[in-house]
Amino acid sequence: MITLTTDFGTQDAYVPAMKGTMLSIAPDVRLVDITHQVSPQDIMEAAFVLQGAMPYFPADTVHLVVVDPGVGGNRRAIALRHNDQWFVGPDNGVFSLLLNQEPPDEIVVLDNPEAWRTPTPSSTFHGRDIFAPAAAHLAAGATLKDIGTPIDRLSSLRWALPMVVEHTIEGWIVHIDRFGNCITNIRRDTVTEAFPDIGADQLAPPHQEPPIPLKCYVGSTILEALHPTYAAVAEGDPLMLFGSSGFLEIAVNGGHAAQLLNIRKSDSVKLLPHSLDAANASA
Amino acid sequence: MITLTTDFGTQDAYVPAMKGTMLSIAPDVRLVDITHQVSPQDIMEAAFVLQGAMPYFPADTVHLVVVDPGVGGNRRAIALRHNDQWFVGPDNGVFSLLLNQEPPDEIVVLDNPEAWRTPTPSSTFHGRDIFAPAAAHLAAGATLKDIGTPIDRLSSLRWALPMVVEHTIEGWIVHIDRFGNCITNIRRDTVTEAFPDIGADQLAPPHQEPPIPLKCYVGSTILEALHPTYAAVAEGDPLMLFGSSGFLEIAVNGGHAAQLLNIRKSDSVKLLPHSLDAANASA
Amino acid sequence: MITLTTDFGTQDAYVPAMKGTMLSIAPDVRLVDITHQVSPQDIMEAAFVLQGAMPYFPADTVHLVVVDPGVGGNRRAIALRHNDQWFVGPDNGVFSLLLNQEPPDEIVVLDNPEAWRTPTPSSTFHGRDIFAPAAAHLAAGATLKDIGTPIDRLSSLRWALPMVVEHTIEGWIVHIDRFGNCITNIRRDTVTEAFPDIGADQLAPPHQEPPIPLKCYVGSTILEALHPTYAAVAEGDPLMLFGSSGFLEIAVNGGHAAQLLNIRKSDSVKLLPHSLDAANASA
Repeated sequence: MITLTTDFGTQDAYVPAMKGTMLSIAPDVRLVDITHQVSPQDIMEAAFVLQGAMPYFPADTVHLVVVDPGVGGNRRAIALRHNDQWFVGPDNGVFSLLLNQEPPDEIVVLDNPEAWRTPTPSSTFHGRDIFAPAAAHLAAGATLKDIGTPIDRLSSLRWALPMVVEHTIEGWIVHIDRFGNCITNIRRDTVTEAFPDIGADQLAPPHQEPPIPLKCYVGSTILEALHPTYAAVAEGDPLMLFGSSGFLEIAVNGGHAAQLLNIRKSDSVKLLPHSLDAANASA
Repeated sequence: MITLTTDFGTQDAYVPAMKGTMLSIAPDVRLVDITHQVSPQDIMEAAFVLQGAMPYFPADTVHLVVVDPGVGGNRRAIALRHNDQWFVGPDNGVFSLLLNQEPPDEIVVLDNPEAWRTPTPSSTFHGRDIFAPAAAHLAAGATLKDIGTPIDRLSSLRWALPMVVEHTIEGWIVHIDRFGNCITNIRRDTVTEAFPDIGADQLAPPHQEPPIPLKCYVGSTILEALHPTYAAVAEGDPLMLFGSSGFLEIAVNGGHAAQLLNIRKSDSVKLLPHSLDAANASA
Repeated sequence: MITLTTDFGTQDAYVPAMKGTMLSIAPDVRLVDITHQVSPQDIMEAAFVLQGAMPYFPADTVHLVVVDPGVGGNRRAIALRHNDQWFVGPDNGVFSLLLNQEPPDEIVVLDNPEAWRTPTPSSTFHGRDIFAPAAAHLAAGATLKDIGTPIDRLSSLRWALPMVVEHTIEGWIVHIDRFGNCITNIRRDTVTEAFPDIGADQLAPPHQEPPIPLKCYVGSTILEALHPTYAAVAEGDPLMLFGSSGFLEIAVNGGHAAQLLNIRKSDSVKLLPHSLDAANASA
């Protein structure tokens, strides 16, 4: 099985050219689109979306990730094995994000022309000429050494992690989904570590607890409590909750939070206990 | 075979997370996207689109329908069998629309945690944790009783039907497609019953009859005749015809009727014989 | 294997109705979407996109192409064999574009009602009722004569070819891709024939040559040289290069050339040696 994550969109020939190439090499392979709607050349968005889908795929899945602003330049073309999955694409940091800086079991640079689609690949579309063939060969049973030469380490990019400053968590909006839900980079354990009064069991799914009082400053609004589900508040009301990927989300029940609350990607988010909110306590 | 109908879009991890989950349970299942572009939380739109595709799928297809504004609330998670097809999703009325109020052969509530992806499902994404696994188990040969407990009846939503008042059919625009064709809720038999002068055979496809004179008031225009095909009028001209799903459509040959004629979803449509159009007859 | 190229979009029932129809006839066939985002009724765009993907599919692939402004009118429904591939769709010129005017090995008109989905096909959706069944029968092993009656020739449309006038190549922008890259109809051999000083080997991929001095007038800008890759110029800088389909492209490294340089589909492009650019030489 091969998954595809690209910024190629679905109106051009780029994605089907890659699929035809893979099916010519591995006629029985199953292809699953993650998304082709990554914002052009946005490596971190590609990693964020694939990270939300990756854990649900079976062992030995090949993840082909082609968001490649440096095509034809000096960035390396690589394939790697980590835990029980394969990854193929340009070495521009996307894999270090996907692996959360863990070292892969094995990495190769794709320097074997016999594993390319043609010995004279296009200088602008390695997705078709180098990466898709590599993914197809792996899916068809090739080893990493069959298609490249071992190397030691990945190019590295890091997720910005939330900070805890004076009992306040400062994070960011990292993604806005189709519904307008605003997804932060704040995980459950960041909250339980910063606010020891909140037990981990209170935040674990499926949690049936009453709303947990916490203040959140974001966009043009203040939120007052953490809820378990969208439906826990009245339709049209904003809320905080932990979404299905384990990150804190700002949402509006039945509405588009990003538009209604004026929130944009990269906006900062501050989370603190009600008792510490001096500004509003004194108001 | 499993079809997918959702409002999740194609830029987030939601759809591939469901696909990965299904392929982990049923590696050989075939997945076919109906659409992921349903307007957020629009249950009737989901039913309308799936109803236009459903009749063409083979026996034993599983239709997974996840448009789920009430996720985490009180709505039930169900699966059902009707004629020779399976359906899985939240019981929010979508299935009573799809079945046109016919009672299903068998319904279960999905209360068996062993058939979930995890015994502690997310409270915001039952598509991944409850519905996708149920669909995959059915496709892999499970029975409804293997994955849930029988219940008696569905939550019910009804399509608004056109009315016939004083020899005039009053209907609505229920869908506008990518071409701008405006699809009403008026079927062939409503027309032949209301206007006995028009024979059913005149309306049956492929009909080669001359245009049938009928007046239609819609948006900012009046149409004068029912035609068999788009190409029956000159390019740029508006027309009425029965579309491929059997509903009356307002279209423009080679143009976008909704924009050109100022028609919106839910607009009313009046259809009457020329002889009864007193307002314009006296003009 | 069957590929699908349409202007149906992905929010309506049209594409899944065709897929269900095909899977009912040929349960094991593999379906690959080329695109469903062709601009409504734009036959040349459909041909351009499929031509960029077609060469990468294996032998005996069936290409189903349904961009059908004339549905229900006089245009013929056909299927054909060319080299080792099959093609199915309305005979509106799209196949003569795809085959670059080469005569197909065999053509039939789809006049056998037993190979249709129903003997009374819809007059507005031959994609579902005539073309999808034909594609599925071919994929399942039928011959062209099983599904239709031989005919001699295709309806013909021709690509506009660039002209060479006084040592200047005049071409057009034929496609703008998701990244904003502006793709012309100027191929490598047009350049080497018009400008004999440039050797074919200088333009062949992967070419590591220094930039080749050529002037290009397009949109609101002048470009000065032909580069091998996007990354050959600084981020934000415009450039000319030969893209992955072999056509000259106008691009901006890391940017959206069509927006930044004010270029639109059908704009003209002039390409000439620096030595001949009298207008600017005298400036």
